[in-house]
Amino acid sequence: MKSLMMLPVALGGFALLAAAVQAGQSELVLMPWPKKVTLKGERFNLTDSFRVSVQGEADERVYTAASRFLGYLAGRTGLFFQQLYLRPEERVEHPGLILFCNRPGTLKLGEDESYRLEVRAGQITLRAETGLGILRGLETLLQLLHADEQGYYFPGISIEDEPRFPWRGLLIDVARHFMPVEVIKRNLDGMAAVKLNVLHWHLVDDQGFRVESKEFPRLHLTASDGFYYTQEQIREVIQYAADRGIRVVPEFDVPGHATSWLVAYPELGSAPGPYELERRWGIHYPALNPASEFTYAFLDRFFGEMAALFPDPYFHIGGDELEHPGGHEAKHWNENPEIQKFKQEKGLKDNAALQAYFNRRILKILTKYGKIMVGWDEILHPDMPRNILIQSWRGKEAMVRASKMGFQSILSNGYYIDLIYPAADHYLNDPLPPDIPLNKKEKQRILGGEATMWGEFVSPETIDSRIWPRTAAIAERLWSPQEINDVQDMYRRLEIIRYQLEERGLMHEKNYPMMLRRLTGYRDIEPLKTLVDVIEPVKHYRRNRLREHTSLSPLTRVVDAARPDATVAREFRRKVEQFLSEEKEPALFDELEQRLLQWQQNHERLLPMIRLSPVLWEIESLSEDLSHVAGIGLEALKAIMNRKPLPSDWKDASLQRLEQAGVPRGEAELMILSAIRRLVESASAE
Amino acid sequence: MKSLMMLPVALGGFALLAAAVQAGQSELVLMPWPKKVTLKGERFNLTDSFRVSVQGEADERVYTAASRFLGYLAGRTGLFFQQLYLRPEERVEHPGLILFCNRPGTLKLGEDESYRLEVRAGQITLRAETGLGILRGLETLLQLLHADEQGYYFPGISIEDEPRFPWRGLLIDVARHFMPVEVIKRNLDGMAAVKLNVLHWHLVDDQGFRVESKEFPRLHLTASDGFYYTQEQIREVIQYAADRGIRVVPEFDVPGHATSWLVAYPELGSAPGPYELERRWGIHYPALNPASEFTYAFLDRFFGEMAALFPDPYFHIGGDELEHPGGHEAKHWNENPEIQKFKQEKGLKDNAALQAYFNRRILKILTKYGKIMVGWDEILHPDMPRNILIQSWRGKEAMVRASKMGFQSILSNGYYIDLIYPAADHYLNDPLPPDIPLNKKEKQRILGGEATMWGEFVSPETIDSRIWPRTAAIAERLWSPQEINDVQDMYRRLEIIRYQLEERGLMHEKNYPMMLRRLTGYRDIEPLKTLVDVIEPVKHYRRNRLREHTSLSPLTRVVDAARPDATVAREFRRKVEQFLSEEKEPALFDELEQRLLQWQQNHERLLPMIRLSPVLWEIESLSEDLSHVAGIGLEALKAIMNRKPLPSDWKDASLQRLEQAGVPRGEAELMILSAIRRLVESASAE
Repeated sequence: MKSLMMLPVALGGFALLAAAVQAGQSELVLMPWPKKVTLKGERFNLTDSFRVSVQGEADERVYTAASRFLGYLAGRTGLFFQQLYLRPEERVEHPGLILFCNRPGTLKLGEDESYRLEVRAGQITLRAETGLGILRGLETLLQLLHADEQGYYFPGISIEDEPRFPWRGLLIDVARHFMPVEVIKRNLDGMAAVKLNVLHWHLVDDQGFRVESKEFPRLHLTASDGFYYTQEQIREVIQYAADRGIRVVPEFDVPGHATSWLVAYPELGSAPGPYELERRWGIHYPALNPASEFTYAFLDRFFGEMAALFPDPYFHIGGDELEHPGGHEAKHWNENPEIQKFKQEKGLKDNAALQAYFNRRILKILTKYGKIMVGWDEILHPDMPRNILIQSWRGKEAMVRASKMGFQSILSNGYYIDLIYPAADHYLNDPLPPDIPLNKKEKQRILGGEATMWGEFVSPETIDSRIWPRTAAIAERLWSPQEINDVQDMYRRLEIIRYQLEERGLMHEKNYPMMLRRLTGYRDIEPLKTLVDVIEPVKHYRRNRLREHTSLSPLTRVVDAARPDATVAREFRRKVEQFLSEEKEPALFDELEQRLLQWQQNHERLLPMIRLSPVLWEIESLSEDLSHVAGIGLEALKAIMNRKPLPSDWKDASLQRLEQAGVPRGEAELMILSAIRRLVESASAE
Repeated sequence: MKSLMMLPVALGGFALLAAAVQAGQSELVLMPWPKKVTLKGERFNLTDSFRVSVQGEADERVYTAASRFLGYLAGRTGLFFQQLYLRPEERVEHPGLILFCNRPGTLKLGEDESYRLEVRAGQITLRAETGLGILRGLETLLQLLHADEQGYYFPGISIEDEPRFPWRGLLIDVARHFMPVEVIKRNLDGMAAVKLNVLHWHLVDDQGFRVESKEFPRLHLTASDGFYYTQEQIREVIQYAADRGIRVVPEFDVPGHATSWLVAYPELGSAPGPYELERRWGIHYPALNPASEFTYAFLDRFFGEMAALFPDPYFHIGGDELEHPGGHEAKHWNENPEIQKFKQEKGLKDNAALQAYFNRRILKILTKYGKIMVGWDEILHPDMPRNILIQSWRGKEAMVRASKMGFQSILSNGYYIDLIYPAADHYLNDPLPPDIPLNKKEKQRILGGEATMWGEFVSPETIDSRIWPRTAAIAERLWSPQEINDVQDMYRRLEIIRYQLEERGLMHEKNYPMMLRRLTGYRDIEPLKTLVDVIEPVKHYRRNRLREHTSLSPLTRVVDAARPDATVAREFRRKVEQFLSEEKEPALFDELEQRLLQWQQNHERLLPMIRLSPVLWEIESLSEDLSHVAGIGLEALKAIMNRKPLPSDWKDASLQRLEQAGVPRGEAELMILSAIRRLVESASAE
């Protein structure tokens, strides 16, 4: 036993025991995977006397990042470093790590983020053109920490790295459910860990206006239920992000998704009002009035205020879903004679043209304030100038079209993490797949992408588990070379990164048992955990269809505790495939049998608790189904192992039972049914 | 099975199964226990249609508190309430809960906090003189939530309640380790849950100056490592506290504990300087110069600024430990000829008199700004006027003396939660025990008490586990009648309250498995948890003596993951006593045997992980000792059960082994040794 990688806790009960292996490339847990990695046969031993020195032209950002790095390192190792706060004026003797930084760099799109990391027995060097590169490299180094019976060490390595795309973002929607400052901060820490560099802050929507306006205080005072960020807090978050090399791009959605504006200032609306803060989800009628000069005067003053508050040149004006996801059937526009007249006078042939007119007016305002306009697909119009940025949510075709028309764009289609698809789906969604019909110049207009955390079904308690760890896979897609796309290896690394993200304060793991405790009325959570470990919320927009939801709906039910891409279920599915494809491995048989037995017996253990915890009543039959289908799985598994095929009527009955079990309960669904179906099919006679 | 209280998850592995009992007073989980509780044989059933109405003269505080109450209720029950944000202008039809509030009340010492809660089948009424009483009553009602096979309900009950003491505080030291705003906020939420009403914010000490001063920005800029609260954040916290009926009393420690002041302004010091921010713990020499008018001019301006920032009339100036815990051996004063001359000129006979002079000058400044001065024991001096408040940390005698001299005081001696004593110790520390030698008037000068969370060994990750749940027991001591003092019943309730506190965002439970995961390098945490469940950090100030610590020491080791008043160990000790005192119950024997077997086998499971996780090396022999002493315990247990006494040489050898096992490792100690010793003694021949 010479060297051992940090291995995950037993994955959902499958005892995944640590295999003793010499640190090799296939065991490194780097994410995003760097451009070039070369292992060397040496090691840098980490001790209490480890110190960091900064050389070259570094700014405050590098010093505080290095201090945080030392803090995380001390946290993991328990080593008593004598240095914790780095200061420019301090001379560091015998540094174990030297950071060479050519220039501080500027936090702007396209700034150099490359770095070169060399770990040798005597010293570690991290070189970068800018301080941003140093920040990225420090995260890589932290992921390289190893331990064995000799102590903590960094393996000898040479890494050259730089991002594939310059815009690697995460959208957080704080309008539908407000997220306090600490939620944003800990997610910025998570973003930094995986080298994301843009926080897209969706601050305003039908359900709330979440930013203080000193120009128009009615906005935040009447349209937020009291939940908004003060300008001081906005500045605090921007500084916190900047310290981590992350830009902040605010979004103020106009002219649709506008209810909250109109609650405060109905005179901005296309219909007479009064308006009430929207509690329902979906797409709503209220829209700003594009025919009124008051609207432009108002937005000029408001955007002027916000342009000064948010330093990044990019400024997002939404522009999406003017009533209808497919087009521009803006009801409030259509029903307003003043607007219809205006359209005619200006020779605007349809609502799309009217919105383009509106957008050009907004663009003029933003340009005046030194901003570059960003908007969703719908702002794309042949009449728009090409110096705007399109965020593509409808599909890659829209992005391709934009690019061919000369617009720059970023991709979000395929990165909608609110839809609860597995990490693998997002991971394989390449912004520029090899067959994309774009030439080199057109390709360069694709700047990157953004994961989107829309807020209908997240609370401060659950949002981290919807963002992490899946967003780390998206971060890799946007940073790493296109060829890094092995799903299995991504999951291997993700199951470690998942826990490393906890040291940033993220709650995706911590809140799970807490939520289960509350659901059981503080009883033993094991039986409930056994069930919830293999269920997920329903996918896409189905949750809304299964039950009427509003912003008042509780987000503490089983479906909320359940997490996307359930590890235990995924591992079970993988092992079933492995069992079916290989020689019927007795060890694998035992493992699968044990797991199926646990499920089969679980309902009996869980039922008494369900009875006494009314919040669990809605999943009683789901729990029963898990036990039932596990029984079917067991029969099939044994039949396969013993090569005694089961009759076709057994198969038919079983498949029918599986289909019944596939019906969601409490907006959640069992995630092991496809694997059991595979067993059933393999076990039957033909 | 008609009714079932919310019962804890299996306590540390002892399967504590839910007993079906009719809700009786002895099963209620109220903390602090109200003054008068009468159960009625009815129930109020909670459904989606539950609504709250406010009547009388209530302010914003009541409405937001009621909104939070509904949020917690929805969170626990998953009910889809149609009301979530209460607004004064809204008329509520058919309210299930009516809040009657006579007047808003003022957030000040001694304000009426009483309330009367009536739960009947048809309606719940909560009546209070002030909004503060409503807040306290809502917390009680939340603790009354029950569930059974018919659904969620509140048991019919009549409660009359008011606090025993008006000052019920928690001190949080953010100077030694900085605590971000969210840590303070979530602890304020925890305080509100158990009806504490004063946050004593220890903002300044040798190790850091944690508040922004616009008058003297060098204070926070040069003496905080960049970790301080902006004034905007201070205001945010004060507002957050006020919303929860909690006063905020700031502390600026003078003239001792003053290094951070002097880092910024050495000219304030009694020695020439320059000064460096202190990284060590303990008592240090630096002290403000009481002989210099510059000092008073400076403090006048600074306290003027802070007096405006903190609205509460009480203002804490520390005044403790001028170099020496026992007295006034102020080295820097003694060695400064100017100060010696000054003392002589003013006819001040010793350093105590000089400090009293200093304090009178400060008192004049604070009085000018409308503040009442608070200080630790050391500010008590016959020369001081009686309109100051003494915080007693040295012992109850000091408090008694202060009271007899005519000073008002609050008690902290006995509530030092940083010293890691069990909740029971603090719980039984009555500020006014029946035998206290004070008359009625003198007793009235004792205003209450404060738990003190000193910051040497806490980080934002661990502080909640040092404060909670033990502080809930102190909260009960300060709120409930003196006669409520059954330790066993306190622990019964505390083990539920512990989990309810989680819904406020507190991390005392959540961070435990997270810290264990990091300690194992993300391996299976069960074997480590089995060990850490029965160890605690060493008590009193011993940690400092076992290893040299500074503010740079990592706080992520086993000793930091280990929690005070370890439940598994306490339950084991209790059950051993029960086993020894009663008929040797076979079920209890089995339970104890199973537990001892688990411990006996644990080292073998844990050792491979210790080997590969260097941060665990320091507890290897502790783990070995647990297995060893568990073996001894097993022998003894069986001998007792089988009535086959063991020879006295076995006893002697065993006791010696237990003594060895009592040596702390990694500043942590095993907490089951006293119980094993009891078994050994009972098992031996004589």
